[in-house]
Amino acid sequence: MPRDRVTAMDVAARAGVSQSAVSRVFTPGGSASKETAAKVRAAADALGYRPNVLARSLITGRSRIIGLVVAYLDNQFYPDALERLSAALQKRGYHVLVFLANNRSDVSEMIDQMLDHQVDGIIAASVSLSNQLADRCEAAGIPVVLFNRGQDNWRLSEVTSDNLQGAAELAQYLVAGGHTRIAQVSGWLGSTTGRDRDRGFRDGLSSVGADLAASIDGRYARSEAASAARRLCDGPHPPEAIFCGNDHMAFAVMDALRFDLGMSIPGDVSIVGFDDVPMAAWKSYDLTTWSQPARAMVDTTVDTLMARIDDRTTHPKKHALPGRLVIRTSARGPATWPRPDKQGDSHARL
Amino acid sequence: MPRDRVTAMDVAARAGVSQSAVSRVFTPGGSASKETAAKVRAAADALGYRPNVLARSLITGRSRIIGLVVAYLDNQFYPDALERLSAALQKRGYHVLVFLANNRSDVSEMIDQMLDHQVDGIIAASVSLSNQLADRCEAAGIPVVLFNRGQDNWRLSEVTSDNLQGAAELAQYLVAGGHTRIAQVSGWLGSTTGRDRDRGFRDGLSSVGADLAASIDGRYARSEAASAARRLCDGPHPPEAIFCGNDHMAFAVMDALRFDLGMSIPGDVSIVGFDDVPMAAWKSYDLTTWSQPARAMVDTTVDTLMARIDDRTTHPKKHALPGRLVIRTSARGPATWPRPDKQGDSHARL
Repeated sequence: MPRDRVTAMDVAARAGVSQSAVSRVFTPGGSASKETAAKVRAAADALGYRPNVLARSLITGRSRIIGLVVAYLDNQFYPDALERLSAALQKRGYHVLVFLANNRSDVSEMIDQMLDHQVDGIIAASVSLSNQLADRCEAAGIPVVLFNRGQDNWRLSEVTSDNLQGAAELAQYLVAGGHTRIAQVSGWLGSTTGRDRDRGFRDGLSSVGADLAASIDGRYARSEAASAARRLCDGPHPPEAIFCGNDHMAFAVMDALRFDLGMSIPGDVSIVGFDDVPMAAWKSYDLTTWSQPARAMVDTTVDTLMARIDDRTTHPKKHALPGRLVIRTSARGPATWPRPDKQGDSHARL
Repeated sequence: MPRDRVTAMDVAARAGVSQSAVSRVFTPGGSASKETAAKVRAAADALGYRPNVLARSLITGRSRIIGLVVAYLDNQFYPDALERLSAALQKRGYHVLVFLANNRSDVSEMIDQMLDHQVDGIIAASVSLSNQLADRCEAAGIPVVLFNRGQDNWRLSEVTSDNLQGAAELAQYLVAGGHTRIAQVSGWLGSTTGRDRDRGFRDGLSSVGADLAASIDGRYARSEAASAARRLCDGPHPPEAIFCGNDHMAFAVMDALRFDLGMSIPGDVSIVGFDDVPMAAWKSYDLTTWSQPARAMVDTTVDTLMARIDDRTTHPKKHALPGRLVIRTSARGPATWPRPDKQGDSHARL
């Protein structure tokens, strides 16, 4: 490897800085002033010096790489989260090795490959790990944080929004808006987010004396959500409102109802979603939805992971962060919200 | 590192396979049957064996990591491309280290970090490299492929679609549809894709005796495209058709015209885009557009990169792949397309 023959000492001499300054410039996340970094990089370029990060990783046991498993990139929530996660990790001197998952067997193979690459930590977005996989990561000393998905395993940290509270407030908002026949295209009931939003929505309806007229599992997929919407509405007693388990499905539901069944939104039926992805604000949809706190979720995920990387005795943590209702025009609502008489406790857990 | 004390020989003995079979299982992209891989992984787990990929990388000089610089994740073309690129590279035993770029100084810093991580190659999606950066990659022996962006530098391979041909056919289609006053919200004219689509569209109009009534640079940004559309249409002589430099801007243009100016599409104005992202097929937009061959572009990018990784004497190549017109309802068109009398050469380069 000819480019390694030039040493850090040569670079330090040429740049007129100490050898430890050279080291700091070439350590991802290391502290060096912009001025020093520029001098050192220029000297390194002139001499053809390239630090051997792999060799350093062998010594420090740190690769400065975080493995990220992600599914559902067609749902705008995830490209946005990937961008935020990647930026937050870059600031700390880490980079993201991306693995795309579509089913459980994929995930197992990916975790193997991540361990082979000696990642310092793993973030799993909307993906579950088998208990065996979680054990394997634990045994290898690699902390795992689940992002926007929970799992009943104490070894895994997790960061979600408060799905129960969010879905409950959407239910109360629809009832306060005068809807009586209310249906749901749920998120995938095989996931904790799908189940929590389903339970939160039912609890929210109960809390104001209403109940759920019909529910179909949309499995977080566009085509299944559209077909669920047609089945719910193509009969003599269509619902007056539909709660969709995420925005991605809500857009499909709105398109199916408007263009396949000729219904008007919210004239014939109110639609609400969950996430508040950027597209929810586009005027073609203008979707009333629950805003998941993407920035806070990303910051908490990165903090939780870093804490466990720095100190492996730190216990895994489960976080459910507060979100907020974003009122737009896709659903009829009450004149004011939260209702003045309930303002005090409208954000309390039901 | 206690987990390295168990050797590949121990694993081979326990799994009842040869040591070279163990090595193949743990070499990313190595050939091993599913059955052998399962036996070896089980033996490795039981013994707590973990191959040291970093150590092997030092010996082979290969990290099996490709650096991917990507910008514009809010434009659905890129999450989709990222998914396809990542899947195609995973199949070859490579993984993608993602870097998110927003401006030129970022890119320079990112390339430095990629070189520090000793990536085997770099894919730059919709990002330009300074000539100095290109030289630095070349000196380090790291091939670079530009994806969906060109650049006048022979050291860099590039893969785009045939932007000139695509924009030209869209122009001819609009003229054949009976539009006379035709305007453009162009892609960013600082990029080769923006410039090529602009030139192709003007050439296409000229080829059938028409010309461009007005043009504003939308810079591939949603808010700039919306404001450009309002400026073009909020006067006494609005255009009859608008070509948008990509679909992402076309959606913003359609929302602005429908909801801010109360115009009907295509009744008052026809809209066409460029890309054919999944959302272009959603009924709220149902956008007539030029389909970039995303799959072929990804395959060509990966093939080009792999060829240069395997043999560094291979010359960089520039590819401009053919796409096709996708006719939907956002623009008035002729009764048949391509016109029967022109069918023979409708896809020929103008």
